[in-house]
Amino acid sequence: MSQISLEELQLAARNHALPLEALRFDITPIGLHYLLVHYDIPDIDLDAWTLEVDGLVECPLSLSLDDLRARPAVEVTMTMECAGNGRSYVEPHVVSQPWLYEAVGTATWRGVAVGGLLDEAGVRDGAIEALFVGLDRGVEGGEEQAYARSLPVEELLASDAVLAYEINGVPLPPQHGHPLRLVVPGWYGMTSVKWLERIELRAEPFDGYQMRHSYRVRMDEDEPGEPITTIAPRSLMVPPGIPEFSTRERVLEPGRCELSGRAWSGAAEIVAVEVSTDGGASWAHAELGEDRLGRWAWRSWSFSWDAEPGEHELCCRARDATGAEQPLRPPWNVGGYKNNAVQRVRVIVR
Amino acid sequence: MSQISLEELQLAARNHALPLEALRFDITPIGLHYLLVHYDIPDIDLDAWTLEVDGLVECPLSLSLDDLRARPAVEVTMTMECAGNGRSYVEPHVVSQPWLYEAVGTATWRGVAVGGLLDEAGVRDGAIEALFVGLDRGVEGGEEQAYARSLPVEELLASDAVLAYEINGVPLPPQHGHPLRLVVPGWYGMTSVKWLERIELRAEPFDGYQMRHSYRVRMDEDEPGEPITTIAPRSLMVPPGIPEFSTRERVLEPGRCELSGRAWSGAAEIVAVEVSTDGGASWAHAELGEDRLGRWAWRSWSFSWDAEPGEHELCCRARDATGAEQPLRPPWNVGGYKNNAVQRVRVIVR
Repeated sequence: MSQISLEELQLAARNHALPLEALRFDITPIGLHYLLVHYDIPDIDLDAWTLEVDGLVECPLSLSLDDLRARPAVEVTMTMECAGNGRSYVEPHVVSQPWLYEAVGTATWRGVAVGGLLDEAGVRDGAIEALFVGLDRGVEGGEEQAYARSLPVEELLASDAVLAYEINGVPLPPQHGHPLRLVVPGWYGMTSVKWLERIELRAEPFDGYQMRHSYRVRMDEDEPGEPITTIAPRSLMVPPGIPEFSTRERVLEPGRCELSGRAWSGAAEIVAVEVSTDGGASWAHAELGEDRLGRWAWRSWSFSWDAEPGEHELCCRARDATGAEQPLRPPWNVGGYKNNAVQRVRVIVR
Repeated sequence: MSQISLEELQLAARNHALPLEALRFDITPIGLHYLLVHYDIPDIDLDAWTLEVDGLVECPLSLSLDDLRARPAVEVTMTMECAGNGRSYVEPHVVSQPWLYEAVGTATWRGVAVGGLLDEAGVRDGAIEALFVGLDRGVEGGEEQAYARSLPVEELLASDAVLAYEINGVPLPPQHGHPLRLVVPGWYGMTSVKWLERIELRAEPFDGYQMRHSYRVRMDEDEPGEPITTIAPRSLMVPPGIPEFSTRERVLEPGRCELSGRAWSGAAEIVAVEVSTDGGASWAHAELGEDRLGRWAWRSWSFSWDAEPGEHELCCRARDATGAEQPLRPPWNVGGYKNNAVQRVRVIVR
């Protein structure tokens, strides 16, 4: 990895990663779930706040938080990951939020089903996209903007998307989008717009900065590239043993060591996790845990390792039902997106 | 600032900073309070956990969380700051957790008064220090250790120190020391040992790594240096306007702009905050807010600025009742501790 600049460090300080040992929790405790805030956490007057649903609808809606809470509630437990996770490992270096492996978390979100609310508003013929607009404002790529992303109506209605006002049983904290955010299971986190102000049904695709410029896989600045959608397969392990403070290298005793971790994919269910204890030269199957958390959340895995004295590089890789598997080396693209290369954990057994 | 390495970035990803806009909250929401975890967040079996109080006491104690909750509860609202806050701005560069300005937060902690518990155990003559030992283990400076710090008994009994099992009205989350941590008002955060396992009353000063090597102000590696104790005065402002994503530079409209922020000091109360809108060339007094949160928490301040078009560097500095004031330039020492130099915020008014 190249060294990183003060500007990137400023982003890393604001945008919190999951400490890897927190992979042991089925549901990530609040304060450990990853967090990406493009601009500032907005200061919202809840008494004045409403969600507007407008554009190509039969009946525009303007709803307070109490209005939303009065509607039938649904819950979804899902693993959310940033599309830029792994960016610090791509070469050549890409300047943006410098994630390592840990831009992930799993939470139970409670709120109103997006499908139900759109039914209530009545989506008119010709509406092809729903645009979600947040209250967070900033300048990016030279454009002043509110953070906003759109989704095809068809995909949105086929999804388990929720307008969430609670996380893990408590009202959304400010950093997770209070009072209301979108969560879209299986998609990278950029889709789950926080601090929602408005949903607009549109006849034309939305061409804002976060659709046109950000969150596209392109091999050079001038090509339009492919939009980023669902989460590619990834697995992570709880680093075994104890850490060295500065290097985060792991130290452990020889003998039986139960490795464990999580694996997830947005496109399809996880079908296999493999572990390597020799830096990826050879692989063996890990055992997948029970599917307790449902389709949209990570799956636990475990692997019993007979740790012999010496230095080892532990790796894990996941494969989903489409056959997609984590690569051994980081893929590159202009934005440093979707680097789901295998995790490498250096361990000293002594 | 020098560029930072992958190893420092690993620390920055784990150890969360307060996003500066969160200075607007009197009490920092969970998930936004700063967090420093030397090793890993330990995995604790609450059914098996007890706090041991032993060493030079009349009556050693072994207490479950229920035992502690059955005792009279106290609360303290306090601002906690890492002794390494500001480290990234010192020159020459110091390699450790690369904090910028934001290793701070304010919380209300609830638990058992340390003084009361030591009375119950009966501190014996000759006990000069209380050692607090955590359950987090790692390797640092070549030494395998549990995180442990001591305090003089006299200072501890004179303080409002609490053995806390709640933060902001909820049980401690794992990252804040569940099930029990020490909090010592006015002292830098290294003193507030998390994941407590044991309190030992001692006849001799504790000479562990975190006392002897870390958390001392020394000008060269070979001198013993001075131990770090109470928090030096600091003020921070909520950056005005909106941010540019990559640089975090602020953009705002010309006209009246209400600047606001917080100021705190461990040694004595804050008596003045000054603001400069020209990079520290001239200063004017800010207005201190009501002292609503008590002696151990930050004080709000505000300053009305007539923002004219152009580029500006905004600064703030605090002074406490001892006369101590924030320096304009970062002080240096081997560990990069206690850099309370004034915050500088670049603003473009357009």
